[in-house]
Amino acid sequence: MYLILGSTGYLGSHFLKYLRNIGETVRGLSRSEIDYTNSDELRSLLNEIKPRFLINAAGYTGKPNVDACESDKAECLFGNAVLPGRIRTACEEAKIPWGHVSSGCIYSGKNKDGVGWGEDEEPNFSFRNSPCSFYSGTKALGEEVLKDAENCYIWRLRIPFNEDRNPRNYLQKLLNYSNLLEAENSISHIDEYVRSCVSSFTKQCEPGVYNLTNIGSITTRQVVEWMREEGVADKDFQFFENERDFMAKAAITPRSNCVMDTEKSEMAGIALRPVEEAVRDSLRKMRMQVSV
Amino acid sequence: MYLILGSTGYLGSHFLKYLRNIGETVRGLSRSEIDYTNSDELRSLLNEIKPRFLINAAGYTGKPNVDACESDKAECLFGNAVLPGRIRTACEEAKIPWGHVSSGCIYSGKNKDGVGWGEDEEPNFSFRNSPCSFYSGTKALGEEVLKDAENCYIWRLRIPFNEDRNPRNYLQKLLNYSNLLEAENSISHIDEYVRSCVSSFTKQCEPGVYNLTNIGSITTRQVVEWMREEGVADKDFQFFENERDFMAKAAITPRSNCVMDTEKSEMAGIALRPVEEAVRDSLRKMRMQVSV
Repeated sequence: MYLILGSTGYLGSHFLKYLRNIGETVRGLSRSEIDYTNSDELRSLLNEIKPRFLINAAGYTGKPNVDACESDKAECLFGNAVLPGRIRTACEEAKIPWGHVSSGCIYSGKNKDGVGWGEDEEPNFSFRNSPCSFYSGTKALGEEVLKDAENCYIWRLRIPFNEDRNPRNYLQKLLNYSNLLEAENSISHIDEYVRSCVSSFTKQCEPGVYNLTNIGSITTRQVVEWMREEGVADKDFQFFENERDFMAKAAITPRSNCVMDTEKSEMAGIALRPVEEAVRDSLRKMRMQVSV
Repeated sequence: MYLILGSTGYLGSHFLKYLRNIGETVRGLSRSEIDYTNSDELRSLLNEIKPRFLINAAGYTGKPNVDACESDKAECLFGNAVLPGRIRTACEEAKIPWGHVSSGCIYSGKNKDGVGWGEDEEPNFSFRNSPCSFYSGTKALGEEVLKDAENCYIWRLRIPFNEDRNPRNYLQKLLNYSNLLEAENSISHIDEYVRSCVSSFTKQCEPGVYNLTNIGSITTRQVVEWMREEGVADKDFQFFENERDFMAKAAITPRSNCVMDTEKSEMAGIALRPVEEAVRDSLRKMRMQVSV
């Protein structure tokens, strides 16, 4: 049986749906049912359920966005850096393989060679390499806490999207915001991401860190252009002048914009599709929903 | 009534003893009695006890020393950065003034003017200014989590000492170690520290950060010389060649050695004695214990 922690959240519910769709037995848990953040309760839970694999989709992201983390620092640290460490200890004791939803937001821009960040490169948008958002700082600490963890996959997501009219969907966000920030990013088709995560285990990939973003990168203007071409939006999108303008008018804490290297996931056979293909496919499905 | 969290620890037990000695009503709690790290339990506790002042002497220091924090990062983060945030929230809700045992170990050396670090200066031995020990990183995050907290005192301690034959006592440590590291530090007489902490509240000092170290600073060689002069030790103390030698032979993670500015605590009328006076006094009392 698969066990999902945080199964009612955005990520967790996608894991739950996907695993059920492929016919797996799954137990999804939210913290309100069982307080799995308590080490004793987590240990009992693992002893009772004995899952073949655990997925940690719980974490503190901040609602409606990462700015909210700046005013709830303790719980942000707890969800993103303490909890992964407690799960690690419990899973190592019970010898249960597991995966952790991490994030590429611990990087900014491209690496010193001008290409995407590889799995082994030190985060440059973290407490250890400030400035960063408090959220990114805690996610980087989470990876630090999981360094050399046994039988643990660390799956880095970036800016989830698909065709759903969900406020967490990047494409929907672009449609909702009155002003956009031009930036280059790697992004993750959420359903492909979830499938790749599960595949890393079922294909017995080497445990460790994986950048699970669609191959390549996008710029905001490029995505907006695709939106027009695919008939999803014909409005004139407004852009902030630059990042400083965005920070002054719309944000409290700096955002990570970064490009990830996906060679490791490609070599492991768990890569996501090239990003343009995945985005256009989602846009076409969004248009069809609108038309229906 | 005063409420002390972590009352069975080294710091907490000194608070408990001092407050009882001066005739105050005190309730001391250890985490094994009530899990005050759980926000719900903490809230109930405060509603039930309604303390006039809360002292957070709980924290994760690492046994036998700060190297141990490197292998238990999640709990170190939890005890030193998450717990203070939860106490802040609960105390602000219940309108209870409180104090937090912080540390000067978030600094290294002296400040850019070549003098002790002031309360408002940004830590330079923290995650945001790496390298640092994981312990110091979490203590600095703890202060960040408490920034602008209401009716909250942040009492910075450095290297506690007194006359007790306790392995946590700096003077006893110097006697126990086979090799010493020459370094300049501000240090805190533990009993004076505790008295100053309580005085900050009883004297109605402005809430905020206070460096509570004895006035001035010491070097290891100076203290060893005082030990000889006071008849506490006549052995030949061995020293590491330098910090690199120390790191290579005896330590996993770097140590903070730093000098603190005590002007704010002097102005507030809660200063500790000049350091030489306090150290020599402790050494004389240590010698008397040996003779008995």
